[in-house]
Amino acid sequence: MAEQKATDVTWHDHTVTKPERQKLMGHKSAVLWFTGLSGAGKSTVANTVDHMLHQKGIHTFVLDGDNIRMGLNKNLGFSAEDRTENIRRIGEVSKLFSSAGVFVLTAFISPYRADRDKVREILEPGEFIEVFVNASLETCEKRDPKGLYKKKRSGEMKAPFTGIDDPYEAPLQPEITLDGDNKTIDELAEDVIAYLKNNGYLTA
Amino acid sequence: MAEQKATDVTWHDHTVTKPERQKLMGHKSAVLWFTGLSGAGKSTVANTVDHMLHQKGIHTFVLDGDNIRMGLNKNLGFSAEDRTENIRRIGEVSKLFSSAGVFVLTAFISPYRADRDKVREILEPGEFIEVFVNASLETCEKRDPKGLYKKKRSGEMKAPFTGIDDPYEAPLQPEITLDGDNKTIDELAEDVIAYLKNNGYLTA
Repeated sequence: MAEQKATDVTWHDHTVTKPERQKLMGHKSAVLWFTGLSGAGKSTVANTVDHMLHQKGIHTFVLDGDNIRMGLNKNLGFSAEDRTENIRRIGEVSKLFSSAGVFVLTAFISPYRADRDKVREILEPGEFIEVFVNASLETCEKRDPKGLYKKKRSGEMKAPFTGIDDPYEAPLQPEITLDGDNKTIDELAEDVIAYLKNNGYLTA
Repeated sequence: MAEQKATDVTWHDHTVTKPERQKLMGHKSAVLWFTGLSGAGKSTVANTVDHMLHQKGIHTFVLDGDNIRMGLNKNLGFSAEDRTENIRRIGEVSKLFSSAGVFVLTAFISPYRADRDKVREILEPGEFIEVFVNASLETCEKRDPKGLYKKKRSGEMKAPFTGIDDPYEAPLQPEITLDGDNKTIDELAEDVIAYLKNNGYLTA
């Protein structure tokens, strides 16, 4: 669905390079890609990590499923094809942000492994940090922060719902796996910060 | 074409606000939107301004027509509908960058007035700076840096071409008009920097 349509285009190098932008920022840039079921805590953990990084002087930004769906991807629904295009666009935007030297955090269910792998492929080695927020369907359905599981179970929601009538394909080798069943949001956020520290992401 | 398809979405406030992100950056953020014919000098001036701003310690990024068309908008062509969707997506991405505190420069023909006005509408007052790179068709065709006019005139290029068989609607009230027929690239870039200084964009 994303074949190259425009011809007569050539790649322009930016006058200012990515390393130069990172140098001005004072830190490396990367994409922290949170994935997991609805209600697993992706957005909450991402925003908590974002706040912690901001406090440390890291220039960050959060791309959030619902927010993106009201802007860039407002013309996409929840069919398999639209989910794939949704993630493709978000991957490309993440790449642009990281190229700008910004540490970007994305919080999307991103249920299909192939779609996430494609994002990994368009980024440099080490630039894609897959964070699997591993919480069971039971946990997520019990929390149900947006009341979506309830709507789906009652039949009020017709769209395919990840984990119920649409598949969730867990990452096989995520950089970080978070125990969303047993840990608090702050503990999960600290686990992410620890990974970034231990792997040299928080220095220039 | 961009009606809201996804239902059951709610707007999340980022924990870190836009003013907080701007404060960490040390400057305001905005969108410098360059528009004009192919060959008018949009990309070259935008990259020159980008370089100048970077030298001043401003965190910037350039969104460029051809680069975006090889990534985010690779599945769009040059029909009127695709051109509109092209600009819509770029507008939304520009908004995200500006929300992140980054000073974004866009260099797209963006031929339709209504499409540019829609971008202005989704941004805050003063956040959209329309830069009309005003160069005549004669000037642009004489330069023809990518050989596109030649391809079009010879019939090798079939796609509609702005200024020849596709309309260019010049801005009615751009914040900045650049004299692309008579000034050098450096002079045009200095004109942009002067506007930003005089209007308080380069301070926190």
